[in-house]
Amino acid sequence: MTSEREFIRELQQRFVVRPPVLTGIGDDGAVLSCDDQSRMIVVTDMLLDQVHFDLRTTSPRLVGRKSIAVNVSDLAAMGSWPTAAFVSIVLPKDSAPATQQFLDQWYSGIQDLADQFEFTIAGGDTNSWNGPFAINVCLTGMPIEEQAVLRSGAKAGDALFVRGPLGGSLQTGRLLTFEPRLTLAANLLDRADLHAMMDISDGLSLDLHRMMEASKTGAMLIAEDIPVHSDVALIDGLEQPLHHALSDGEDFELLFSVSQADAERLSHSDLQLHRIGTVTDRAGFVELIHADGTVSAVGESGWQHL
Amino acid sequence: MTSEREFIRELQQRFVVRPPVLTGIGDDGAVLSCDDQSRMIVVTDMLLDQVHFDLRTTSPRLVGRKSIAVNVSDLAAMGSWPTAAFVSIVLPKDSAPATQQFLDQWYSGIQDLADQFEFTIAGGDTNSWNGPFAINVCLTGMPIEEQAVLRSGAKAGDALFVRGPLGGSLQTGRLLTFEPRLTLAANLLDRADLHAMMDISDGLSLDLHRMMEASKTGAMLIAEDIPVHSDVALIDGLEQPLHHALSDGEDFELLFSVSQADAERLSHSDLQLHRIGTVTDRAGFVELIHADGTVSAVGESGWQHL
Repeated sequence: MTSEREFIRELQQRFVVRPPVLTGIGDDGAVLSCDDQSRMIVVTDMLLDQVHFDLRTTSPRLVGRKSIAVNVSDLAAMGSWPTAAFVSIVLPKDSAPATQQFLDQWYSGIQDLADQFEFTIAGGDTNSWNGPFAINVCLTGMPIEEQAVLRSGAKAGDALFVRGPLGGSLQTGRLLTFEPRLTLAANLLDRADLHAMMDISDGLSLDLHRMMEASKTGAMLIAEDIPVHSDVALIDGLEQPLHHALSDGEDFELLFSVSQADAERLSHSDLQLHRIGTVTDRAGFVELIHADGTVSAVGESGWQHL
Repeated sequence: MTSEREFIRELQQRFVVRPPVLTGIGDDGAVLSCDDQSRMIVVTDMLLDQVHFDLRTTSPRLVGRKSIAVNVSDLAAMGSWPTAAFVSIVLPKDSAPATQQFLDQWYSGIQDLADQFEFTIAGGDTNSWNGPFAINVCLTGMPIEEQAVLRSGAKAGDALFVRGPLGGSLQTGRLLTFEPRLTLAANLLDRADLHAMMDISDGLSLDLHRMMEASKTGAMLIAEDIPVHSDVALIDGLEQPLHHALSDGEDFELLFSVSQADAERLSHSDLQLHRIGTVTDRAGFVELIHADGTVSAVGESGWQHL
């Protein structure tokens, strides 16, 4: 097996993009054109017992909520509002998840977010088998403004922002209860021209590499401006808080780039935004300036000293 | 656990349908409005190793093809052309499906249909776990005419047609190699006003019950007009060929209703259509007239003599 990035590159080469698809594999979601004017966005995510959650320790309601929340977060990252969810599940035969009570709780979890953001659970598929519990959610959406925001629009000279703080999500369970940043996305679109945006699911380091690769740009980060979550202090044997903020992932916060003029405006907002660095023309290079002035290269899973 | 029909009814009651969703749970797919004019259709299906196929005896290419074909068939049933597929898979760790060769073949199978019908594989998700191989496909489409064809539009007095023949699909492997009737759907829309349509996945009896329930109508079938597939003769211990045509399922042929005037036109077509009966006003009743004039009630899994 090759790495996920190589695998996605292979798939991009293998599958031809045909109209009405405008953006296919490689962003948080796909963009389809309905007609000259309107666009539809589609995102999808599969969640698996013992991989993405653990039913022995997590309530079905939280698992249901999370299966929708990760997809809502992908749509928020594309500046798009959810319209319809398609939820497929497979239940293990003869075990707790096959009971009506489990299903009721699970569906309550997905309904919570559908009601909060006013979209429809519009279809799906339900099966049972001699295997673990699995869920696939496919979520459609519509751009809040005329166009979706892609990963590929960052420009050299842009300011980079995250909604923070980051890190410690896995160890403290925040990864199950996070709030998808949909209202924030709408707010940002109202105030600024977002050049590129994505949500942080695999860690700031890796996701920023993905954005810079898609945009054919690089990034210079300021170490002391990266917001470290207080949850990180709770992790045992902690030596490098910044490393957790860069690498833990499952933050589901928004990462985006805007012009310097928009950056000025957003810096004085009340949106808990952190300006963490600048987009450069050094395509593919992500670097970090430490407090003492030393510069490190940031790899996909954190930084190594040069 | 309740029956699938009860379960779907529960879900329909539980989940509110909100704009831009026009048709939600309960048809072959959902209908979303993009704007005043254009519609988007979404269908989804999950396929599981040892439930819907058996990787010990079936090539990955055929499994890949089928995972797309069942969804194309659902779109055909809604009179809609596919635009974009979203393919999620989970691979068992340390086994054949995790190899590059398996994946190459599997993706060739999905590519075959994407190329044949000119749509895009536009996204998905890939994972691995300590469980069996599973696939979820979500497929978007656009109505061939202005509107999608639903299950709920059959009218008392309509003629009922199937593209046949039916039965024996499971036992002879036709369920893996079937041709989704997309070109037929386009052809029918060109020649007639289709009141209701669906594809036969769970057997003519059960699927006709679903269509009649959605349309609040009944059906009177003519036993000798139901086309029995020659594959049925290959099944050992065969006593009731008609029973197989009614109940086997996985035919993926189109079932539809049209006015008597349109029925006249279609009866003389070269489309391998079979006029199998008439829609009645006896809501929920599906009945069968045998060659000797006796009438049977047809249950969801075949007929019982009155």
